Amino acid sequence: MAKLIDGRKIAENIRNEVADEVRRLKDRGVNPHLSVVLVGDDPASKVYVRMKGKACQETGIGSETLIFPESLSQDELVRTIRRLNADPKINGILVQSPLPRHLDEHAVIELIDPIKDVDAFHPYNVGKLAAGFTDGYLPCTPVGVQELLLRSGYSPEGKHVVIVGRSNIVGKPLGLILVQKAKGANATVTWCHSRTRDLPEITRSADILVAAIGQAEFITREMVKPGAVVIDVGVNRVPDEASDKGYRIAGDVAFDPVSEIAEAITPVPGGVGPMTIAMLLRNTVLACRRQHGIEKGV
Amino acid sequence: MAKLIDGRKIAENIRNEVADEVRRLKDRGVNPHLSVVLVGDDPASKVYVRMKGKACQETGIGSETLIFPESLSQDELVRTIRRLNADPKINGILVQSPLPRHLDEHAVIELIDPIKDVDAFHPYNVGKLAAGFTDGYLPCTPVGVQELLLRSGYSPEGKHVVIVGRSNIVGKPLGLILVQKAKGANATVTWCHSRTRDLPEITRSADILVAAIGQAEFITREMVKPGAVVIDVGVNRVPDEASDKGYRIAGDVAFDPVSEIAEAITPVPGGVGPMTIAMLLRNTVLACRRQHGIEKGV
Repeated sequence: MAKLIDGRKIAENIRNEVADEVRRLKDRGVNPHLSVVLVGDDPASKVYVRMKGKACQETGIGSETLIFPESLSQDELVRTIRRLNADPKINGILVQSPLPRHLDEHAVIELIDPIKDVDAFHPYNVGKLAAGFTDGYLPCTPVGVQELLLRSGYSPEGKHVVIVGRSNIVGKPLGLILVQKAKGANATVTWCHSRTRDLPEITRSADILVAAIGQAEFITREMVKPGAVVIDVGVNRVPDEASDKGYRIAGDVAFDPVSEIAEAITPVPGGVGPMTIAMLLRNTVLACRRQHGIEKGV
Repeated sequence: MAKLIDGRKIAENIRNEVADEVRRLKDRGVNPHLSVVLVGDDPASKVYVRMKGKACQETGIGSETLIFPESLSQDELVRTIRRLNADPKINGILVQSPLPRHLDEHAVIELIDPIKDVDAFHPYNVGKLAAGFTDGYLPCTPVGVQELLLRSGYSPEGKHVVIVGRSNIVGKPLGLILVQKAKGANATVTWCHSRTRDLPEITRSADILVAAIGQAEFITREMVKPGAVVIDVGVNRVPDEASDKGYRIAGDVAFDPVSEIAEAITPVPGGVGPMTIAMLLRNTVLACRRQHGIEKGV
């Protein structure tokens, strides 16, 4: 049976490290602060935003959530971002995705000052990542996957990492992070997706298989090489009459059969999920340090 | 024997298309213009810069080369870039790489106004490419490889493209271009490099194999699947006593043995090389159009 990679535990360790850093910064009179912008009533977005606020609080990071009605105009949103950019007390700005359809999300992301872009979705930070420069920010979920691998003893160095999914939030940036000529990276990286032919043949060549497709239990046992490390980024609702809610949460991997042959696997929930918020906290502290010109470890 | 992919011919077609566009723009009183900055005496750089100027001239694009001595200071270079950014007659700015060691090349590239960054090395444009947005520019050599494939009838859609090399100039951006959910892309992409284990096994899984390592004749027959399409981005000098110059130019692929089993192959020279300049011309005209708000085809 596969070893379980405990994302909750690893994320907790990182959050403790962040809390230590925050204490040291506060001793110098510096208070890291994250501003989260939420527009509309998407229930999942509300949950995520609440979790982010709570995580900030627990690690000593100041945070505020600016909540706007669905009817918010692009102009008002633009003015809000400009105000947050200009406020020296605010170190990180996060606009919760998705925005209502009448708003231009890309335009809004490009307005965020790259030094406050702790979600790392601004093209400038994406380009820094792609080029392997370390003076930008790394997006939270993919860098969380890298940390999860490193802290559970499965370094991607020299390994063949196959990523199923090419989204801008997970698949593409994860491939870019892991292919870099850098410690903790140096992987051979393959991206697969809906247009890939012979998908099982390619996924079976993976030493580390990452599923980020958004389809429940898409990765079956036949698609996994025995002994592979399997990282499941998916969070899907599956109808389940036995559950009070009427659904259960499933990953992109058929957990039970795959865990019989994998070397290690992340559960859903409790795998990649908790890492995303831990990395957001880390980015916020990094943003704060950069804005105050304070080196790490000081 | 493999079909030869004739980069000179395909590049010539593109240059003719560009020349047509330039004529139409000039009919409207709009004159595309490229400024090239050359610092120091690197012989290869001088040749490249001369070729770029000549190509501009032949397609009707205005161009100037600003030549500075090796001793140029960072401040002077910065002032030059700022002046070119501010000049509305200049549509494209290209700083020939490599710069002398005392100059900070990354800082200079980041100074170029992204809308004039026809080399597409500014992090903002790299990020646009990575995210699959089409309002940036695509770097000349990798998008030249894509054009070469499409115009010779070897669409990458659904194919497994293996790229050997992870440079910021070729390997990484090429993977990003070909993996996008877009017409002429949609490939399954694998990046290999110096840290890849079992390299021959992975290269043999390629439907399209791209060599961009910078090592003469590194890709041998044993590393290629019979029937694969082989794209050779390498330009290497190999000592050759039989030659007047004392060297010959070789690609990254062992041409003769590989061409016995490949479906198609690019020669060196005359394959990818001519495409790079053709794409630079195309980017310059695109930059001109964007700066004048003129749609394609008008």
